[in-house]
Amino acid sequence: MTLVLFGATGDLAQRKLFPALYNLYLDGKLPSAISIIGLGRTNYSDRVFQMNVHASLQEFSRRDVQPENVEEFISKFRYCVLDVFNEESYQGLLNLIQMREQELGIAENRMFYLSVAPDLVEIITSNLQSSKISDTKGWKRLIVEKPFGTDLKTARELNEKLSKVFNEEEIYRIDHYLGKPMVQNLETLKFANPILELLWNHDQIANVQITASETVGIEKRAGYYDQAGAIRDMAQNHLLQLLMMTALDIPENLTAQEVEQEKREVVEALRPISKEEASKHIIRGQYAAGEVLGESVIGYQDEPGVVPASKNDTYFAARLYIENPSWENIPFYIRTGKRLEQKSTRIVIEFKNKWKGNPAFEDEGITPNLLIFEINPNESVSLLVNLKNPSTERYEPTNITFSVNSNIQPESYELLLSDAIEGDKTFFAHWKEVELSWQWIQPILEAFQEDALPLYPYPAGSKGPEAADRLLQEDGFNWW
Amino acid sequence: MTLVLFGATGDLAQRKLFPALYNLYLDGKLPSAISIIGLGRTNYSDRVFQMNVHASLQEFSRRDVQPENVEEFISKFRYCVLDVFNEESYQGLLNLIQMREQELGIAENRMFYLSVAPDLVEIITSNLQSSKISDTKGWKRLIVEKPFGTDLKTARELNEKLSKVFNEEEIYRIDHYLGKPMVQNLETLKFANPILELLWNHDQIANVQITASETVGIEKRAGYYDQAGAIRDMAQNHLLQLLMMTALDIPENLTAQEVEQEKREVVEALRPISKEEASKHIIRGQYAAGEVLGESVIGYQDEPGVVPASKNDTYFAARLYIENPSWENIPFYIRTGKRLEQKSTRIVIEFKNKWKGNPAFEDEGITPNLLIFEINPNESVSLLVNLKNPSTERYEPTNITFSVNSNIQPESYELLLSDAIEGDKTFFAHWKEVELSWQWIQPILEAFQEDALPLYPYPAGSKGPEAADRLLQEDGFNWW
Repeated sequence: MTLVLFGATGDLAQRKLFPALYNLYLDGKLPSAISIIGLGRTNYSDRVFQMNVHASLQEFSRRDVQPENVEEFISKFRYCVLDVFNEESYQGLLNLIQMREQELGIAENRMFYLSVAPDLVEIITSNLQSSKISDTKGWKRLIVEKPFGTDLKTARELNEKLSKVFNEEEIYRIDHYLGKPMVQNLETLKFANPILELLWNHDQIANVQITASETVGIEKRAGYYDQAGAIRDMAQNHLLQLLMMTALDIPENLTAQEVEQEKREVVEALRPISKEEASKHIIRGQYAAGEVLGESVIGYQDEPGVVPASKNDTYFAARLYIENPSWENIPFYIRTGKRLEQKSTRIVIEFKNKWKGNPAFEDEGITPNLLIFEINPNESVSLLVNLKNPSTERYEPTNITFSVNSNIQPESYELLLSDAIEGDKTFFAHWKEVELSWQWIQPILEAFQEDALPLYPYPAGSKGPEAADRLLQEDGFNWW
Repeated sequence: MTLVLFGATGDLAQRKLFPALYNLYLDGKLPSAISIIGLGRTNYSDRVFQMNVHASLQEFSRRDVQPENVEEFISKFRYCVLDVFNEESYQGLLNLIQMREQELGIAENRMFYLSVAPDLVEIITSNLQSSKISDTKGWKRLIVEKPFGTDLKTARELNEKLSKVFNEEEIYRIDHYLGKPMVQNLETLKFANPILELLWNHDQIANVQITASETVGIEKRAGYYDQAGAIRDMAQNHLLQLLMMTALDIPENLTAQEVEQEKREVVEALRPISKEEASKHIIRGQYAAGEVLGESVIGYQDEPGVVPASKNDTYFAARLYIENPSWENIPFYIRTGKRLEQKSTRIVIEFKNKWKGNPAFEDEGITPNLLIFEINPNESVSLLVNLKNPSTERYEPTNITFSVNSNIQPESYELLLSDAIEGDKTFFAHWKEVELSWQWIQPILEAFQEDALPLYPYPAGSKGPEAADRLLQEDGFNWW
């Protein structure tokens, strides 16, 4: 097969893609006959490009670079300078692809990885078609990164254009949260563990909380972020994907098709939130100056590149209901934000607690049972149970935890690239999911644009706006 | 209160009881006005005895001895030489008890701890009565250690004699396994954790396995052990107590009375095993020479003090059924033995596994879910779940474990002594339990005496006789 990598001189390629490919190579998961062609605007020789690949492995590979085989690995790489807007420029690319296919004796199986700015996706796809690069006798696949559109309308337009060149089965939309081993384990855990299946339903669950909190600010991405906000950057894609993975009904077989079907049914069943109701179920926040991890940091509005008096959201929380028999009346709470106290992505399932509100037992320290999936920065599954301290005779909530040794865990991009190579779409975002997510988000986006709900400031380094705590208190819960 | 300690110069007092009392003292759990009177055959002055107590703390206390208060602690101790067979000797004891009661201004609350050979229990109790030491204006309590009889008949005789002096509410039968924090947590775990309550029943559980394995041989106790065997030394008391604690229905309130009631209902519901059926459900074993923890050891029959060609059991395993609605048709397997591969006391609950026997999933590595309570030498609760290894795409059984830091855990004797001081009998063996345990054991004892079932030799350092593996294989299970 051939892997054609647009954006081969960019950050993602250096930090994630080359190291992922190398680790797949070490694990014998890369086809032995693979041609990898990097594209960029800068003029490099193949050798210089190969040395760049080598350097990126040394800096970013989770496993040490092995001198005895690294040369063989980088020899699979070729470089081609490309002006993505120039149709003729693609002819050189086609020639290189075909030359390597002949040299290596490989079929016309071509994978196009678009690690480029979102506004380039359409033109590249269209040029792949007009240059006939996408006319292959083998398979062809397109891998695209987020964002996939900026609202329901633009997402649909983008999809329509891609669909002229690639059909849905050929489009792999990366959501790197779906590449996290712990996220991939959400469905297998339920599937393979009868005791978890028994617990994982609305008879036993009181609520589900999905958190993706960051300590960083917007870094150097004001241009993008001030337009996108937390709602587009995190909520519409990552948080809703995590929600689907948590809430899907386990199918009879864990095939990609059945998982896709079950995910779609979750997002289809999301109770819509109208523009008018947004203020009831959504919390919008923006960080003010404060202190994060011991360091003073400026507020969002003072960040370079942010428009004056920006009303952009850097914090987003929501209460959602999934209107199907599995989740009737069980609230799902999602939240994300920048400049928060802690970097953590996690899913917490809070079980019903028959002792709740019974002061005799609450006084003894009984808390609800929790099933906790830590996804980032560390991976673990824990179960929070009440153990009695034999000395004090009080209950103490105690984590029973399995932590994953992250050095031996493959990275998201390894798993996702490997799946894409094998043609397994289980852990990619499918168009219907993306569309339905935008559809659910759209009225809230409009409420934001019309300033129809408060924008709560929160100090950098805090847990976010207090309004988000009240959102759960209304239902008798608190964030874990 | 007064604590009268028979056997104050013995091993248990030195290693366990004095350190336990000291740690209770450090925790403020000892009554400030307490008189502790040690008894023995050897003549000691109070001061020498106090120095012995001090020395035992230095050697065996889990917490360091604190110079600023140890003197106050040991000043509570007095010593009295006693010939347990001589009625007149008890007059001196009574005088000392009363003198200290007056000195300290304490009520006639008297606790008698009998850390003595079992054949002395009757005579001491009878002399406590005839000397009127047990005639108190306050409460009186008797603490006895195992063994409580050697079969159903002798246990009933012993109990009858004790009952002439102490009523059942006043008798505290120590089973130190019940003092282990993890054993005490068995009932609280179910009580305080709705998710465990949901799992802990015959709809979900496939079988329960209780193991108490030792690496040691019979040490210097051939005289006792060659008479008792594993069946009396471990099975009739410790293993059946652990079985009761695992299987009891959680009462509405965790009072001592209700727990006692529930424990009794378990042992009452044990399906009897007749002498004739013993060979079907019971495995009897005896260790041969072998290697334990890298050291060659001799076989049981060559141990000094063992009668020639002894048929005594050093290994005991059994399959039991509890005939009540909670446990219908769920086998409980118990086993214990000396000179085994590993020192471990644990309870394993194996959950039903719908993938069992489905080769497609067994090939992928799915194993049953297990809930594991490690009791000794380390304490932990684990849940074994199947996680998918994202690299290999195989399921790997993974322990999620909570381990207790044993340095900060109170020892069994602390918890039990503290309970006895407070008059809480929850974690003591009640007469009906003891009697019913002997009743269940009696036909098996007789089958052993009549050699009505095989005595399987097993090499020291092994997992025990293979016949014990077959016992579970018959039901489609294996030991965990």
